[in-house]
Amino acid sequence: MVLAAPRTLDLESLCELVNLRLAQLVPEGSPHGPSAAARHSLLAPGKRLRAVIALIASRSVGGRIEDALDTACAVEMIHTASLIIDDLPSMDDADLRRGMPTAHTKYGQDIAILAGIGLVNGAYEVLARASAPACDRRMEITQVLTRAVGWNGLVHGQALDLRADGSVDAIHEGKTGALFVAAAEGGCLCAPDYTEDDRRSMRAYGRALGFAYQAYDDVLDQACDEEMTGKTTGRDAGKRTAVIGAEASLGSGMMLAQRHLRTAMDAAGRSSPLAALAEYIGSYFSETLAA
Amino acid sequence: MVLAAPRTLDLESLCELVNLRLAQLVPEGSPHGPSAAARHSLLAPGKRLRAVIALIASRSVGGRIEDALDTACAVEMIHTASLIIDDLPSMDDADLRRGMPTAHTKYGQDIAILAGIGLVNGAYEVLARASAPACDRRMEITQVLTRAVGWNGLVHGQALDLRADGSVDAIHEGKTGALFVAAAEGGCLCAPDYTEDDRRSMRAYGRALGFAYQAYDDVLDQACDEEMTGKTTGRDAGKRTAVIGAEASLGSGMMLAQRHLRTAMDAAGRSSPLAALAEYIGSYFSETLAA
Repeated sequence: MVLAAPRTLDLESLCELVNLRLAQLVPEGSPHGPSAAARHSLLAPGKRLRAVIALIASRSVGGRIEDALDTACAVEMIHTASLIIDDLPSMDDADLRRGMPTAHTKYGQDIAILAGIGLVNGAYEVLARASAPACDRRMEITQVLTRAVGWNGLVHGQALDLRADGSVDAIHEGKTGALFVAAAEGGCLCAPDYTEDDRRSMRAYGRALGFAYQAYDDVLDQACDEEMTGKTTGRDAGKRTAVIGAEASLGSGMMLAQRHLRTAMDAAGRSSPLAALAEYIGSYFSETLAA
Repeated sequence: MVLAAPRTLDLESLCELVNLRLAQLVPEGSPHGPSAAARHSLLAPGKRLRAVIALIASRSVGGRIEDALDTACAVEMIHTASLIIDDLPSMDDADLRRGMPTAHTKYGQDIAILAGIGLVNGAYEVLARASAPACDRRMEITQVLTRAVGWNGLVHGQALDLRADGSVDAIHEGKTGALFVAAAEGGCLCAPDYTEDDRRSMRAYGRALGFAYQAYDDVLDQACDEEMTGKTTGRDAGKRTAVIGAEASLGSGMMLAQRHLRTAMDAAGRSSPLAALAEYIGSYFSETLAA
């Protein structure tokens, strides 16, 4: 699944930058150890969407791509950790992700758990060692990212999802929205002269884009098979998110996604590259579903 | 298992401070969720040894206890995360820890894994939000702590231990030593006027004390039953650390521990409170074994 987007967004070279940097940030280590398992999942073909959001958010408020690269990679490392953990036998029990065997399928459950921990830890190490932005900004980004992961973020959302406890929106907000918000806000904080207004807009953008993404993803999970999505599908059946999803038609799922997408574009400003990114995500999902 | 130590060390009030602060740092959350599981393990009666090392290290190079408290708690949160993870069914499969059911026994494996992730993440959140020490120091402490946890630290040591791969010293250094070093070094970094010599001494102290602690712990694991240690014992049988341990007599294990203890005391300076702490740990283990 590769994004081929409008030239103005330059997504291909941004993804390339992220991929190159990610490969430097996790050592190869022993061939059967946690860092090899982490690299297996981290460097598998991915859309790098959260990293790209951070980079474009930073650029859209006057920052330089290179000053936001490590922040973008830290977000991507957290995202990969969440995939490894969500796929574990005691959670979603999935054996396929990004078109490849999941980390625990290939390396064993124990090593996969250590890989997940290593990636979360590694994300904060990357931020702590990054040469940009300045120290106080990186500390603020660490606050943003730890909040997105923690007791009210990914960890919370995943627990709600596992126990089918809490509203669909609360689950989506924790599991997907929190990290989209952190990506956009973290990228914004990498720009030297962002304003508090910028920061608020970025948060709103990330939140709405996260909802849109999750809505599309649910529709895709219902409609497509594993060959198309590159991951184990149908595992959401029986969970509350999917129960609701099954009640609604695919069409109304698409409408919901598009409504969130418009909110995201409004938050970013219709002429912003972030709005173009949102629009592109919409057409990407629409085309995948039409196929 | 409670430390009752020489008055000069003031261990009881240091532990009390740590316990009070830890209880503030992890929210209660839903009664069956990850933060409840994290609190279950984090607030169970523990020696708080790593936190105390950080506090006394800071004080011994002129720092204030209150400026090192959050760093000490971050180290303790990482330590508890490592216990939760090590005890999982796919790892040591232990059902008893600190005299209580392990997190996965009480909350389920999925929630226990999320609790472990939440605690690692939470440690960095605590550092990112701490009011002391200054931002650049907290960033340096984050570097120290992420290195101790990461691909060459706890994550690495646990993987070596699981796969019985690598020397006993390498396993001990990763599983125990790394966090002892980070505790002593992190505490040192909380003091405004530490010197590079101080920092080197603290690292040497932490390393030697970690070796000593692990050697005592191995002897205890061989010699004692669950009632005395408050955790599942004998699980190390078959692992390389324990194979070596079984060959050696308890006596030579004690001699090894005492030699490392003397190295620690020399590194700290014989009159330092850290040396008194090391000495106290030695007599604590000796008495427990004699009983």
